[in-house]
Amino acid sequence: MDLTTLPFGNPFDDDKLHEECGVIGVYGSEGAAALTALGLHALQHRGQEAAGITTFDGKDFHTHRAMGHVAGNFDSEEVIRRLVGDIAIGHNRYSTTGETALRNVQPLYAELASGGFAVAHNGNISNSVKLRRELIRRGSIFQSTSDTEVIIHLVATSTYRTLLDKFIDALKQVEGAYSLVCLTGEGMIACRDPLGVRPLVLGRLGDAYIFASETVALDVVGATFLRSVEPGEMVVVSPRGLRSLRPFGVMRPRPCIFEHVYFSRPDSVVDGSSVYQVRKKIGAQLAIESPVDADMVVPVPDSGTPAAIGYAQESGLPFELGIIRSHYVGRTFIQPGDQIRNLGVKLKHNANRAMIDGKRIVLIDDSIVRGTTSLKIVQMLRDAGAAEVHMRIASPPTRHSCFYGVDTPERSKLLAANMDVERMREYIKVDSLAFLSIDGLYRALGEDLRLDDAPQYCDACFTGDYPTRLTDFEEAEVPDQLSMLAERMI
Amino acid sequence: MDLTTLPFGNPFDDDKLHEECGVIGVYGSEGAAALTALGLHALQHRGQEAAGITTFDGKDFHTHRAMGHVAGNFDSEEVIRRLVGDIAIGHNRYSTTGETALRNVQPLYAELASGGFAVAHNGNISNSVKLRRELIRRGSIFQSTSDTEVIIHLVATSTYRTLLDKFIDALKQVEGAYSLVCLTGEGMIACRDPLGVRPLVLGRLGDAYIFASETVALDVVGATFLRSVEPGEMVVVSPRGLRSLRPFGVMRPRPCIFEHVYFSRPDSVVDGSSVYQVRKKIGAQLAIESPVDADMVVPVPDSGTPAAIGYAQESGLPFELGIIRSHYVGRTFIQPGDQIRNLGVKLKHNANRAMIDGKRIVLIDDSIVRGTTSLKIVQMLRDAGAAEVHMRIASPPTRHSCFYGVDTPERSKLLAANMDVERMREYIKVDSLAFLSIDGLYRALGEDLRLDDAPQYCDACFTGDYPTRLTDFEEAEVPDQLSMLAERMI
Amino acid sequence: MDLTTLPFGNPFDDDKLHEECGVIGVYGSEGAAALTALGLHALQHRGQEAAGITTFDGKDFHTHRAMGHVAGNFDSEEVIRRLVGDIAIGHNRYSTTGETALRNVQPLYAELASGGFAVAHNGNISNSVKLRRELIRRGSIFQSTSDTEVIIHLVATSTYRTLLDKFIDALKQVEGAYSLVCLTGEGMIACRDPLGVRPLVLGRLGDAYIFASETVALDVVGATFLRSVEPGEMVVVSPRGLRSLRPFGVMRPRPCIFEHVYFSRPDSVVDGSSVYQVRKKIGAQLAIESPVDADMVVPVPDSGTPAAIGYAQESGLPFELGIIRSHYVGRTFIQPGDQIRNLGVKLKHNANRAMIDGKRIVLIDDSIVRGTTSLKIVQMLRDAGAAEVHMRIASPPTRHSCFYGVDTPERSKLLAANMDVERMREYIKVDSLAFLSIDGLYRALGEDLRLDDAPQYCDACFTGDYPTRLTDFEEAEVPDQLSMLAERMI
Amino acid sequence: MDLTTLPFGNPFDDDKLHEECGVIGVYGSEGAAALTALGLHALQHRGQEAAGITTFDGKDFHTHRAMGHVAGNFDSEEVIRRLVGDIAIGHNRYSTTGETALRNVQPLYAELASGGFAVAHNGNISNSVKLRRELIRRGSIFQSTSDTEVIIHLVATSTYRTLLDKFIDALKQVEGAYSLVCLTGEGMIACRDPLGVRPLVLGRLGDAYIFASETVALDVVGATFLRSVEPGEMVVVSPRGLRSLRPFGVMRPRPCIFEHVYFSRPDSVVDGSSVYQVRKKIGAQLAIESPVDADMVVPVPDSGTPAAIGYAQESGLPFELGIIRSHYVGRTFIQPGDQIRNLGVKLKHNANRAMIDGKRIVLIDDSIVRGTTSLKIVQMLRDAGAAEVHMRIASPPTRHSCFYGVDTPERSKLLAANMDVERMREYIKVDSLAFLSIDGLYRALGEDLRLDDAPQYCDACFTGDYPTRLTDFEEAEVPDQLSMLAERMI
Repeated sequence: MDLTTLPFGNPFDDDKLHEECGVIGVYGSEGAAALTALGLHALQHRGQEAAGITTFDGKDFHTHRAMGHVAGNFDSEEVIRRLVGDIAIGHNRYSTTGETALRNVQPLYAELASGGFAVAHNGNISNSVKLRRELIRRGSIFQSTSDTEVIIHLVATSTYRTLLDKFIDALKQVEGAYSLVCLTGEGMIACRDPLGVRPLVLGRLGDAYIFASETVALDVVGATFLRSVEPGEMVVVSPRGLRSLRPFGVMRPRPCIFEHVYFSRPDSVVDGSSVYQVRKKIGAQLAIESPVDADMVVPVPDSGTPAAIGYAQESGLPFELGIIRSHYVGRTFIQPGDQIRNLGVKLKHNANRAMIDGKRIVLIDDSIVRGTTSLKIVQMLRDAGAAEVHMRIASPPTRHSCFYGVDTPERSKLLAANMDVERMREYIKVDSLAFLSIDGLYRALGEDLRLDDAPQYCDACFTGDYPTRLTDFEEAEVPDQLSMLAERMI
Repeated sequence: MDLTTLPFGNPFDDDKLHEECGVIGVYGSEGAAALTALGLHALQHRGQEAAGITTFDGKDFHTHRAMGHVAGNFDSEEVIRRLVGDIAIGHNRYSTTGETALRNVQPLYAELASGGFAVAHNGNISNSVKLRRELIRRGSIFQSTSDTEVIIHLVATSTYRTLLDKFIDALKQVEGAYSLVCLTGEGMIACRDPLGVRPLVLGRLGDAYIFASETVALDVVGATFLRSVEPGEMVVVSPRGLRSLRPFGVMRPRPCIFEHVYFSRPDSVVDGSSVYQVRKKIGAQLAIESPVDADMVVPVPDSGTPAAIGYAQESGLPFELGIIRSHYVGRTFIQPGDQIRNLGVKLKHNANRAMIDGKRIVLIDDSIVRGTTSLKIVQMLRDAGAAEVHMRIASPPTRHSCFYGVDTPERSKLLAANMDVERMREYIKVDSLAFLSIDGLYRALGEDLRLDDAPQYCDACFTGDYPTRLTDFEEAEVPDQLSMLAERMI
Repeated sequence: MDLTTLPFGNPFDDDKLHEECGVIGVYGSEGAAALTALGLHALQHRGQEAAGITTFDGKDFHTHRAMGHVAGNFDSEEVIRRLVGDIAIGHNRYSTTGETALRNVQPLYAELASGGFAVAHNGNISNSVKLRRELIRRGSIFQSTSDTEVIIHLVATSTYRTLLDKFIDALKQVEGAYSLVCLTGEGMIACRDPLGVRPLVLGRLGDAYIFASETVALDVVGATFLRSVEPGEMVVVSPRGLRSLRPFGVMRPRPCIFEHVYFSRPDSVVDGSSVYQVRKKIGAQLAIESPVDADMVVPVPDSGTPAAIGYAQESGLPFELGIIRSHYVGRTFIQPGDQIRNLGVKLKHNANRAMIDGKRIVLIDDSIVRGTTSLKIVQMLRDAGAAEVHMRIASPPTRHSCFYGVDTPERSKLLAANMDVERMREYIKVDSLAFLSIDGLYRALGEDLRLDDAPQYCDACFTGDYPTRLTDFEEAEVPDQLSMLAERMI
Repeated sequence: MDLTTLPFGNPFDDDKLHEECGVIGVYGSEGAAALTALGLHALQHRGQEAAGITTFDGKDFHTHRAMGHVAGNFDSEEVIRRLVGDIAIGHNRYSTTGETALRNVQPLYAELASGGFAVAHNGNISNSVKLRRELIRRGSIFQSTSDTEVIIHLVATSTYRTLLDKFIDALKQVEGAYSLVCLTGEGMIACRDPLGVRPLVLGRLGDAYIFASETVALDVVGATFLRSVEPGEMVVVSPRGLRSLRPFGVMRPRPCIFEHVYFSRPDSVVDGSSVYQVRKKIGAQLAIESPVDADMVVPVPDSGTPAAIGYAQESGLPFELGIIRSHYVGRTFIQPGDQIRNLGVKLKHNANRAMIDGKRIVLIDDSIVRGTTSLKIVQMLRDAGAAEVHMRIASPPTRHSCFYGVDTPERSKLLAANMDVERMREYIKVDSLAFLSIDGLYRALGEDLRLDDAPQYCDACFTGDYPTRLTDFEEAEVPDQLSMLAERMI
């Protein structure tokens, strides 16, 4: 027997698209840093690479940034005590642009002539390479490789007089997706790009205002959800209260549809819809579109669970935990020998053999990206004795890269960009395979169907229909650079 | 608003009994240490405080022990490479006796006159204090405060000639619960105490034998489950093959019933029964014994989920994820102010408000220990708008301490040791509360009922009916010492 | 007996002025980073707080910076291997301006429109506060609080065309002291300010050129000393060879005289003089100016040793190690009780009681700053039985702060700024006390005497005669700010 | 040019014999742990690998042990505070037997039937392998590979009744060298072996007693030196005061002569003699025995300095610092290319070229072990222009291994065991080479000459005349094992 001691990848960095960031801002509460840390913990699923908090105590700014999870870095009394002040912003990062390094961890901070300025950004600026090149030409020196730093230098070099005007001036030059929470000596500014690609909500806790990427960050601190920040809206909070501005004119919103499919937590309410209930409706719609004669419905836990419950209730088949998920993460393990296939998936998931053996399974997952994990999970069910495996995917095929702050693999690695459904079925080795239709997805979201001339959501990952220009991508001169850029941007 | 910056405990160290240990042994496979590490990862739920592996390469013994999880300590190529050899044993520790310190982390190892001897132990020796005192009197010097070390010194000082005889001599002097895997220069010895209180299984991977606390440790490495090691059986594996001994005579077994209720993973098969299916039957039994007129069945995730599925299928009520569990652990967080109640539970669990609001809930949990978490979860559901909360517990009331290797709080802190069911209902603030009957539990396990004169399981935590003497507990002279002892032992 | 458990300061951060920095540059040698690390180790006495190296491999720049000593941070193969390239610059830091933080550790690096630019700086810019304020007003964002960063932003925003012209343009705007070694995509630039306050030498190793603060950095790598970089000289090394520029016109040099008294290593040759021989001549001059009838000459080791040897040889008194210096540093130790006076000094120095007891001692030290250590050493000698202690100081009284990159305490803490020699003698409790005369110091350096109208050295710490403007110090508006500024600058 | 990036050894682990340990005990002082830590810092030269302190607070024992220096491990308030109690013992370790691991770091501690027992040991037991084998055979389990643990097990298994009798019983079975300080629940026991090979002194600080390897440990805490503990003396300190026992009968002492040559600090007083003054006399004796016509006397700093001063004063030649020693340790540095010879020595020592160039040098060092460093230092002086180098060694040739707690290389690596003086001169490449005579060494110590029938000192490293049996060495059966043993023991 050979012993191949190659480490393999993090079984939890599995075959999923990854949201890049979560942001939060707390204005006007004692212990603002502690509330911010709790909110970031609730938003941990939006970015696990690094986290940071910046506070303002009326005089000085205080920042702590660290690689790794919120727990372990922001749960110490000592760290929280140093983050003095009633105003705070925070950020969870899953890098999409910029190398992995502490200097890229947000909030980014700069001392401008008008005073301190800190920013936390969820999204991606699709002309940042071009803007950066121009700023360097004028003498700006960049500290990070993050696209977000472009915004700060645009503010610093703007010729407008007030900080707010400088900030609007800066944002008018950037294209792409951004939900921003900024901290200045005068207060807090929260802002969502004109299309509202990434989410941002507003809540209240006593006298304090809280901005956050998702409502779960309000729940964890006991805050009340007030409303979403609207696409194109800029909300300014200062000692004089809360003001709403509309500096960019009015556009038809295109919020990201994948937040409902996978990114957001099931207990969040995104742009008015319960994520759990939408996912159950997706499952029910899938049961209507693609029914199966089977013994039970089994989710790939945990992301496939709500859709599986919806599928089971609609179809009348029993819902069963045919796959058990471990609570303990295994980053990398030495893999001994060839005899152990599917080790990565087994550290995370194990077949519940006693339930599976001899049964016909409807297997529900939220999406297929590369297909690597699906392949292993199906094999695991077969090894446990499954008689038939019918895979049902709770979204349309994922065929295109995202340029708005989601970590997508290159197109060449997206299974659905390279195969039709029948070939995918063969590849994954299931008895049948079906995806949700695009109109079915819109229907689960309460629409009649997708308005192809003016789509209600950004669904570019399914349709390739991008709602903004992609300047950096288009200006990359040669294919090689272009693909590098694409990889760096996505 | 006041800011109370008191840290609070690990929200994941919640109101549960904790299994103390998991053990594994691999005999006769290249990369034995890697297989052992993978098995320990699958057994991580049995002990998260520390882990260790000892290997034997035919000449030398190699040990690595570390505080913390298996992942992070045993997933590095460097660590695994140093653990040379085709034979390995491993141990996950959740301390029950002995202070928290590296020298207490198992496998324990000693160089005896006959050569090296390493041992990994799941269980607890209930006369270890007495034996230790006698051994010290004869000149033995202890390295640890662990009860397991007593076994090693009994072996070292035994006057029998062969190592196997010394080991049997030693075990005949100890009372209590033990599933042991030992490594010697001549092979591996696995042994389960005469009552078989703690589980131990035997599997096969190619030519290699694997012993483990649960079958999931076989699954993760792709090994085949052969059989349970039987109560009172000693299995010796050496180059000459596998031998089974019965050195203790025959007793009626009393395996721990709580393995089925909570300790073991749902995808394990314990003493012949699928844990997931037993828990579903428990839930169904609970629906028969204590039905409710309600809108949905909601589990306290994840330990209550199988019973909730069983309850829902039996009762016809829909199964819903009314509580969402976070994937990210928060050890300790600063708690800002009084306005945030139930913060601990909220870091781990969040109410799925959109589902809960206005609904009548059947809430399923596996057990109630102190009642602290139940209280908070119920309050969280009420805050999310639940109209009624009916709690159903998938086991009888937990009224007694365990002396066999389970971390139980003092009796004075066990809610059911201090209140009847109606007072517990008031305390937890639910509309109704019911526990599974003891006979219902036996029925879910396939028995007709509990044979009170000769119970089929150790159920002392529910009944106070201990299957062995408790020498150290009984010999403690004054109440003060006694309670200390009890605390140290449990 | 009381136990006062107050920690006390680093006994090795004793009563000395501290040189702030050492710089080195290696052009054109394989393993440039390794040579740079060795040179930094030889220059460790010039700065122990942090160190950094930047290399250029013809395409990319590589930087490693760390808090702490060179050994321990730059002696690992892994670190050196990552610092790829034949060109490298390095820096040892003892902070004079800027907080203690990694972002202030040099070399500082920026990507300019013309490419990468890294700089290592020994000295202090005395108008950096003013320049920084202006740059921020124009939109520059600073990464550090270091005065050195001003130079980089002046280069980045200069309107000249070539990098060299931009660099000269930048330096013409700064005032103060600087020995700089810069790394660009086109080569290396070394530069010494017009007064040549801080030293900088040029050496050769095979085909490679090496710049360094002191000749010992050449010795350690086996390089040959060529010459000093001259005050006001800019040396440019590129693939086309070495060019010498004089962009600042010609001024009368004023190199720092304290390099000869204390800063430089005794085995260095500074601006043409052997430091060891100058110190011996200082000792001899001191014996002529202030003879004593005594039994032996004892140095405060190790800085007083060369002068003590010179004093002994001139006076004919025996040279003895009456004080033994420990090789082991003790940062901070808990001090138990009042009975232990002088603990700090004792961790570093111990009286050689057998030699001292009953003897008349001439005690030689290089300088007195606050007087705190002198007081303790004298007391230690008295406790060991010294009959008489006559202190002789190998420099004039230190009465003024340095603004050119030396860490001087505020004037109010300089003993000689507050007392005449007789009061100092009483304070330190010696039988007699004498300092070297200023002309005696110049004589030891080979001059006839100090030319008061055009002094040959910067001796501002002794005379208050500063060779440049002190813009930031002068422009500080109110006394409070002024003193803060002074503290920050020095 | 080639780049060989091989790391090379610690330049400070140079060509010296190394004392293995320092011990200290403090009885009856508040803050005993702090005094012990300070004493260990003063004894750091006796062992740099690890350090430990054990205290007793009247009820419990507290221990802290750490790899590395005293400073950095025992200077934190937190560590010292946890070491509660008025009684403490401490140990500095430079391993001679036993692998490098924390479990071998002393004080070793055991809970015996009679209570806690901790021991710190300077020396080496030359029959520990044999004793260990017997103890294991009887059932003792060893925690460490240290020879010292044998003593503890002999105490634990002794059949005598009182702890003191058990301890005497144990020591009567061991052969070799030991200076021990032990801590028990009843007080402190200090003991020196019958020959008094390793030193031990007794001092007083207020009401407290202090035992230490050298007087410098008394100096640092301000304690008064009372007397040496005598060879074969056992001193017991308890609440009833101090008692002196002589349990081993009377033998002629044989203290280690190398303590005077190199091991002890120059400011210590060992068995009645000032180490500094003995070394000066050694230098003077060397000048008488082996005069040279030269320009100056240069020490290899710092160990050769006192002898060099003695040589200079006797010969009338000037004493000069021709070699400068760095204050900064460099453990391991990457060595770039062949062009840099002698790098190790250069990190520690640099030639003072301005003094050396063209001069005839008398170079003084304390001893030659392997000769590797001497070779490099001579080459360094030649490279710096020395006209002649005459080496004078302040001890006789080192020809034999030590079995009493000193780290000697195997005999095959001792230069003087393999070459006569003339061949050594050629190897080291000096113009002349001379060693001190053995009688000259005794003369510097105040004796007329060595009494060959009953030598006054243990000088086995020079003469091979061992004062005890060497059981383990003699009983090793085959040459291979024997050499391993020798290596392990020495």
